[in-house]
This record gives sequence, structure tokens and C-alpha cells, in this order.
Amino acid sequence: MPAVRVVLVEPKEEGNVGAVARAMRNFDVTELVLVNPCPIGNEAQRRAMHGGEVLASARSFSGLSAALRGIDLIVGTSGIDTESEKRFARIAIAPRELAVRIASFPGRVALVFGREDFGLREEELRACDVLVKIPASETYPILNLSHAVAITLYELFGLEPPTRTPREASGPEKEILHRALKDLLEVTDYPPSKRSRTRIMFRRLIGRAVPSKWEFHALMGVLQRATKRIQRLEKER
Amino acid sequence: MPAVRVVLVEPKEEGNVGAVARAMRNFDVTELVLVNPCPIGNEAQRRAMHGGEVLASARSFSGLSAALRGIDLIVGTSGIDTESEKRFARIAIAPRELAVRIASFPGRVALVFGREDFGLREEELRACDVLVKIPASETYPILNLSHAVAITLYELFGLEPPTRTPREASGPEKEILHRALKDLLEVTDYPPSKRSRTRIMFRRLIGRAVPSKWEFHALMGVLQRATKRIQRLEKER
Repeated sequence: MPAVRVVLVEPKEEGNVGAVARAMRNFDVTELVLVNPCPIGNEAQRRAMHGGEVLASARSFSGLSAALRGIDLIVGTSGIDTESEKRFARIAIAPRELAVRIASFPGRVALVFGREDFGLREEELRACDVLVKIPASETYPILNLSHAVAITLYELFGLEPPTRTPREASGPEKEILHRALKDLLEVTDYPPSKRSRTRIMFRRLIGRAVPSKWEFHALMGVLQRATKRIQRLEKER
Repeated sequence: MPAVRVVLVEPKEEGNVGAVARAMRNFDVTELVLVNPCPIGNEAQRRAMHGGEVLASARSFSGLSAALRGIDLIVGTSGIDTESEKRFARIAIAPRELAVRIASFPGRVALVFGREDFGLREEELRACDVLVKIPASETYPILNLSHAVAITLYELFGLEPPTRTPREASGPEKEILHRALKDLLEVTDYPPSKRSRTRIMFRRLIGRAVPSKWEFHALMGVLQRATKRIQRLEKER
């Protein structure tokens, strides 16, 4: 993930600024810059939760150009898209496409979010290198400010290697499992004409579920236990 | 996108409930259900913005099971993942993986979000078919409630409506399947101390695999056949 600065232009509700600080902290982004913001007080603090340090270290400027100093790529955000190619300033890409494009960007990236009510002004949008719009309802696409920040940072955070999954059962282990089902079908006198397709059903199901090693062992336990029980009872007859 | 119900369990801040209603409206999801919520007043209204109707039509229940009535797939959310495969109840997938898996799910899906401070309790997590965790900072992964809802719905938004032909097993059918496993564990004298976690393992596995009706019947056949065989043999002793 490249170095990201979050820029809020003229936020009107301090609660939103606090919620933005928390979302930044949730996605390991720390540089917050405010342009001509509302007063930042207790409600912002409260909403920031463990993002308090992000909030406390936020810098404020009176204009956008000062807030963008040292930035290599300016990404504007907009709740409004346009159909018209002429109104190029508002042609936007989705956050996921942004993530792909800047995955290996070596410079500093600013994500610029506009006012709660009017978003970014035309001249502010023109200053941006890229515009991003979050895909949303056609009838009400305007997200809460902190929601827009959270979703955009979430997409960029997703660039990190995916979270570790529990170790999956190996191919040979899965074969042992399928063998165990075969044994169970046999001892239960499962109709021979149906055995093949039931085994394939089970194979597909397990293939889709991608069981962990632990799940493999637990399932094996269930199947083998039933088979052995039947075999023992048969012998006792 | 499948039919989605958002369930908030014991939300403590009405502002969050309002923000959730707005996020739902942003992503064209309208069914909100609250379990034992805080009083919902002006602050919730204010934060809901154009999600006011979603908020106004929200239903409240005193327990989770009533809130899940009519649901075919229960998706729990957790800010806490686990390293241990043994603590299976908390092994989670990412929201993007959820989106892929339920893209063509024809049933009703509940997304269940826990309390702002404690999330979902262990027994609530156990009732879920699938668990979702939003990838976030290792040092502070706990998102604001409405942020978690917004990001999850954002991932589901834009999924094509279900068109798939193989009809999937319904919620009640899956419950019958889980009952059949329970019966088999009992007749095989499966260690009582391990039954609960083996049943939850099976629930998760089936939740991930999304079996068709045919697969449901075939699996039922395997389990019931084994159970009946053992019961018959026991009787003959």
C-alpha cells in the first residue's frame, strides 16, 4: 500500500472527522489533513475511539493547494458520476480500480473528500489526477463522509497480502476422506447403482468447501466411527 | 444480489443505527431488524438522512432467533479472528469471498452485526452458517458498527440477481441435515465433549459449500442410512 494522506475539504460535522480518524486507524493510515474545517472538539474525540492520535496529529490549512503539498498523485472522490464525456472532470473510476492502479505506486497519494453536502467543487475536482466514485444506489448514491473514507481505505488495505487462512487439507488427505465415505456406503448397503453419484456429490461438496486440516480430521472421525460401529455390530450378530 | 436482511444485535448508540440505515439505503438494502436495541430517537433520524424510511420500517425483537425467522443463510460478523483452528467458531472469511459465494444464492440472507463493544457472543456466533471478518489493522481491527455494515454491503452491492438453476437447499432443509448428523453422533457414541464442535464444524462446512437440494438429499441419505443401520443392529443384539 502506498503512502496515503487523507484530505477532508471543509468538513461541517466534527463527529464525521472523528469517525474518519477511527477508520484511518482501522486501516493503518495515519496522515490526516483538514481544509478549513469546523471546530474539532469532544464529539470528534469520542467518535475517533482508538484513532485519537490520528485526530490529534491532524494538520489544518485554509486552502486545498497547501493541503496537497508534497503529494505525487491527487485522487478526488465524488458521489456524483457523469454520463457526459465532455464533463470530463467528473468521469470516475471505482475504488477497486484505483487500488489496482496504485498498488505499486512509489509516491505519495492524497485521497481528497469533499463537504458532507456539496462534495468537491468543480475547480477542486479539476485539480485531481484521478476521480473515484463508490458504486452505490442509483437513487441515493451519496454516502456519509466517514463511510466513503472507510470504503476507499478498505479497498487500498486489501492490497496487502490476504489474511492467512487455516491450513487446508491436502489432496491425499481428501482422498482418504473420499475412501472413508466409500467404506461407509458399502457397510450401510447403500444402493450400488447410486454409490458413484453420491461419491461424486461428496467430492464436489468438499471441493467447494475447501476444508481445513482440522475439519478433515473431524469429518474422518464421523465417517470412520460409523463404519467401524456397523462392522463391529455385524460381527457380534 | 440476494435478498439481504441486516440484523443489529443490541446496538447501544442510536446514532450508529441511523448511520446503518443510511448505508443500507446507499446500497439498496431495506430490511433492518434490531435485537433488543437502545431507544431510537432524533439522533438516529438525523444520521439516517435519506435512509429514514429504512429506519422507520425497522422491526425490533427481544431475541436473535425471532430476528432470524425466514432466513436461509445466517452470516455472522466478527472483528476478531482466530489463529487457532480449534476455535473454529471464529474462523472467518473476507467480505469479498462472501460476495463470491452468495452471488447466486436464491434464499434469504441475514447479515448479523454484534454490539459496538463486545460484538457477537460465542453462542450467537455458533448459530451462524458463515462468519465474515473485514481485513483491517492488526493492532486495531475493530471498526465502527456502521462502517462494518457499509463495507459489507458495498461488497455485496452490484452482484447479479440469482439466476442459477440447481436449486439450493433451504434453511429448514439444512437444519434437518444438521439434526441427522446429531443423530449419527449419538448412535455412534461419539465423545459427548466433542459433539458440539464437530456439529459446528459441519455447519460451517455446509454453510461454505452451499449444497443444492439434490446434494442435501444425498447427504441425508448417507447419514440417515448409517444411523438406521446402527439402530437396527443394536436392536438385534
